[in-house]
Amino acid sequence: MPRRAIVEADGGDAVVIVDQTLLPGRFETVRLATLEAAAEAIRTMRVRGAPLIGVTAAYGLALGLRDDPSDPGLERASTVLCATRPTAINLAWAVSLIADRVRPLPASRRAAAAWAGAGELAEAEVAACEAIGRYGAALLRERLAARGAPGPLNVLTHCNAGWLATVDWGTALAPIYRLHDEGVPLHVWVSETRPRNQGFLTAWELGEHGVPHTLVVDNAAGLLLQTGRVDLCLVGTDRPTRAGDVCNKIGTALKALAAREAGVPFYVAAPSSSIEWRHADPARIPIEERSALEVTGGRPVAAFNPGFDVTPARHVTALITERGVCPPSEAGLAGLFPERMA
Amino acid sequence: MPRRAIVEADGGDAVVIVDQTLLPGRFETVRLATLEAAAEAIRTMRVRGAPLIGVTAAYGLALGLRDDPSDPGLERASTVLCATRPTAINLAWAVSLIADRVRPLPASRRAAAAWAGAGELAEAEVAACEAIGRYGAALLRERLAARGAPGPLNVLTHCNAGWLATVDWGTALAPIYRLHDEGVPLHVWVSETRPRNQGFLTAWELGEHGVPHTLVVDNAAGLLLQTGRVDLCLVGTDRPTRAGDVCNKIGTALKALAAREAGVPFYVAAPSSSIEWRHADPARIPIEERSALEVTGGRPVAAFNPGFDVTPARHVTALITERGVCPPSEAGLAGLFPERMA
Repeated sequence: MPRRAIVEADGGDAVVIVDQTLLPGRFETVRLATLEAAAEAIRTMRVRGAPLIGVTAAYGLALGLRDDPSDPGLERASTVLCATRPTAINLAWAVSLIADRVRPLPASRRAAAAWAGAGELAEAEVAACEAIGRYGAALLRERLAARGAPGPLNVLTHCNAGWLATVDWGTALAPIYRLHDEGVPLHVWVSETRPRNQGFLTAWELGEHGVPHTLVVDNAAGLLLQTGRVDLCLVGTDRPTRAGDVCNKIGTALKALAAREAGVPFYVAAPSSSIEWRHADPARIPIEERSALEVTGGRPVAAFNPGFDVTPARHVTALITERGVCPPSEAGLAGLFPERMA
Repeated sequence: MPRRAIVEADGGDAVVIVDQTLLPGRFETVRLATLEAAAEAIRTMRVRGAPLIGVTAAYGLALGLRDDPSDPGLERASTVLCATRPTAINLAWAVSLIADRVRPLPASRRAAAAWAGAGELAEAEVAACEAIGRYGAALLRERLAARGAPGPLNVLTHCNAGWLATVDWGTALAPIYRLHDEGVPLHVWVSETRPRNQGFLTAWELGEHGVPHTLVVDNAAGLLLQTGRVDLCLVGTDRPTRAGDVCNKIGTALKALAAREAGVPFYVAAPSSSIEWRHADPARIPIEERSALEVTGGRPVAAFNPGFDVTPARHVTALITERGVCPPSEAGLAGLFPERMA
């Protein structure tokens, strides 16, 4: 089994991904050799998770440029990839990062440069997750020490922000893997995350790694927090604004509210590649609406299926980034990323 | 199709229920002719909803007494029924109501007296729901008038508190049916209600009645409330305390928190038969834990499956009872039910 959610293959002719629509029932990899295959994998959520869809799109652009490295080809590939999913900023960000890098080059050199750029992006995401793991683990250790009481540190998470979502390590799960490897006792409450059930991906990942965990329905978060069964919440994010409002998988905002009500810290693991640096207005983040079929399972009933919600910064205790932990605010992010706040 | 969720049959030899585990896919009725059949129907949730399980248990006791009307038979039947589900108070309340009524009688007259008592209880529940419909409809009309803006009144509900849950009318759905019948434009957001998906029962009921509605996953409540798409929340309850803390289907507390955050009223339809009159301590309400299989669907993962949570009275705008609308407090309930507050 590959330890990474996306790997280069065939001497640079393709990438291999884990088909996440088949997990946890079946572990199968899929080879993506064309722009269209990459776009389809993102659209249908064979790959998902903000950092991973950014990296997959970057490789998709490189694959597209092998077939058509012209200026129109570059623009078409960018458009196709950016249209797959709207909310996570990593996607458009990664595509424009690579496109801007190869646009000045002669057509004959674009595909190779894009491929190299995608590889560098993947490594940068892995490094960011590894750093988030270090900073987050220190924070969680402090919480466990401050709690005093015996027993494992009880963490509640939502959706999947593990290595499946991020090439390697994960964002929210990186500190958990790290602490577990260091021998710190942990237990993770895994929220099912309807309608796509990414909680099963998280449970699968944690199980493979040997981290104790328990699956609950999304509805159970209030009871768990009310009754003192959660020491802290830790989630990823698809697009936090520069002011610290956190757009993440639908249902996150409810958990943050319940955490605040219970006096439990709510942390968000946010690599800089996911941050909306351009503005501070969460109302300008496009909230993806997916097919009603994901909710109804084909039953004849009208359904509305928004994929994300926004947790206001005031309900977030801190952001965990690859440069350290900071308050969810412009000032907090500016302290770690001054060059992005110009 | 019977308009009621439970009806007497075979000249008093049985009751017929709707098998709610088959809905919305299939409408099928089941004949319950023994204590054991009634207990099984409650345990497996062929019948569910606080008022309906109370009435089903009352009939179950009568059926048990036909086979064994002795004192031990009465106690055994009571024990079997009370062990089926712990949280809704209607069940134990209805069983002891009937048991206390027939205990003084000679064994030969107990079964008939219990049957009559069960029938009276069913009619009383229907009358209570009809009254809740009247008081609730007036309240909802006021909200719609106060809102001013055009368009239907948008109501968010959770679980199923319709006629399927209550013999007839429903608790939370009674005001909705009434207003719809009066021609008031309404739209209901129906929360899926994992893990048992009672939202599909609500969607089915509303569809049969012609009330516009849209199904959403439980996670979507925060977004709907944040973005002004909900005018009010209206839910039922399995056991509110005499102080107005509301034990209801898991996930209710999260919706109430989100409603408060958004400044949206949160109403609870509570017939007196569901109220815990004996004490004001929500920690003393037994929270049912059901099989992990309901969450995992058989996948090999550890799961925790609590069925209910408690919404603190301070997050509830008002209770709608069969005697009118009141604040969720001892004083509020005492104003309507002075005889229960002795």
